[in-house]
Amino acid sequence: MTHTLILLRHGNSEWNTKNLFTGWVDVDLSEQGRLEAKRAGQLIAAAGLLPDVQYTSVLKRAIHTADIALAEADLDWIDVKRSWRLNERHYGALQGKDKAQTLAEFGEEQFMTWRRSFDVPPPPLSDDSEFSQAHDRRYAHIDGELPRTESLKLVIDRMLPYWHSDITVDLAAGKTVLVTAHGNSLRALVKHLDGISDADIAELNIPTGIPLVYDLDESFMPTGPGRYLDPEAAAAGAAAVASQGKK
Amino acid sequence: MTHTLILLRHGNSEWNTKNLFTGWVDVDLSEQGRLEAKRAGQLIAAAGLLPDVQYTSVLKRAIHTADIALAEADLDWIDVKRSWRLNERHYGALQGKDKAQTLAEFGEEQFMTWRRSFDVPPPPLSDDSEFSQAHDRRYAHIDGELPRTESLKLVIDRMLPYWHSDITVDLAAGKTVLVTAHGNSLRALVKHLDGISDADIAELNIPTGIPLVYDLDESFMPTGPGRYLDPEAAAAGAAAVASQGKK
Repeated sequence: MTHTLILLRHGNSEWNTKNLFTGWVDVDLSEQGRLEAKRAGQLIAAAGLLPDVQYTSVLKRAIHTADIALAEADLDWIDVKRSWRLNERHYGALQGKDKAQTLAEFGEEQFMTWRRSFDVPPPPLSDDSEFSQAHDRRYAHIDGELPRTESLKLVIDRMLPYWHSDITVDLAAGKTVLVTAHGNSLRALVKHLDGISDADIAELNIPTGIPLVYDLDESFMPTGPGRYLDPEAAAAGAAAVASQGKK
Repeated sequence: MTHTLILLRHGNSEWNTKNLFTGWVDVDLSEQGRLEAKRAGQLIAAAGLLPDVQYTSVLKRAIHTADIALAEADLDWIDVKRSWRLNERHYGALQGKDKAQTLAEFGEEQFMTWRRSFDVPPPPLSDDSEFSQAHDRRYAHIDGELPRTESLKLVIDRMLPYWHSDITVDLAAGKTVLVTAHGNSLRALVKHLDGISDADIAELNIPTGIPLVYDLDESFMPTGPGRYLDPEAAAAGAAAVASQGKK
């Protein structure tokens, strides 16, 4: 028996449009993002997929993406589980900064290191910053674990335990699982599933709003490559993500 | 230490507008219902209430009411729990029927008996009906317990166990709980909380879209009367519900 896992990266947000580093700042979807979410729901329904439970981060751009997609598929009623462990990578002191301006200020090498290196986090964000989550009630319970910046490696370190402790338990129970999250928390999961090396993960870009489906074996590892429900749009979307911030 | 419970009846639905018996049929909110939900969220935020967890039925008019209200209060991220035990009363063979037409066809006495008697359910709904939930995937797991019609008494019988097994556990953990549900599942809960007799519950009408707040003691019983966050609108709304169906 195989298990079905559907990954979905949230659509365009208000800060994507403004070209700002977002990370853990809780900005909403743009109108374009809502349309992407709707289309994702149509793709899920058209593929005949029937998620039994939805997982999201605790950030509204992922939550709203899932809600819109599931409403479109007439699956509002399925179980809901949320965790900060599915949040986007914490972008440290870059949160709230303009991407093009950061590129101009620090140069392409430093910029690309922060964006794409596996284990170099940006400088930490001060708890006094208006973009800090240090005083946000939703993270009060994680206290000692609250990040002030993260590399992709640190995202993996806090995301994978949740995969093993919670998501795979639902898969083991025979449930089809939809995980709606973020560029980097999903890259972290795909790195694990596809066995991508620390070096090669830099080249992996996950497009927004296009469901990515895996069939998993009894060890919760893929029986074959993940498939996007709209491969053509996925390829175009991944290329668009890769070029972000450039220019 | 007291516990805080917030009850919210979903707003106007597409079938309220059409004056049809809805019950377990999964119709969406009307535009008016979405505005009511938004206003409910504003009332919750203005009162400084901070729910930690939201409970809903598995019907989209309740789910969307909660989602809209919590988005308005910037609380999208709180935990979500859903159960069929919070569903509206199953209206049996009346589901999908016009209220005014039912009143004309069966007369006021029979009509009011079905609507307001404590323990007389309408005739059961056939599993072949287009308004039946007998083949709905979301209820597959409850199988033997799936109702084909319900009186308010039967609603209490399936709702209260969930109150004791799940909702009070979150209250005991110190969480503020928001329950977004339906006219009759909330009447069932309020009957328990306020110790209303089987006879008197017929007169209790809960208005749509106005949060009703209880402070509960260590036995999860009220320390005083529940309070609507907008008492004036609540009184008008309850009167409107009472006159429903009367032409």
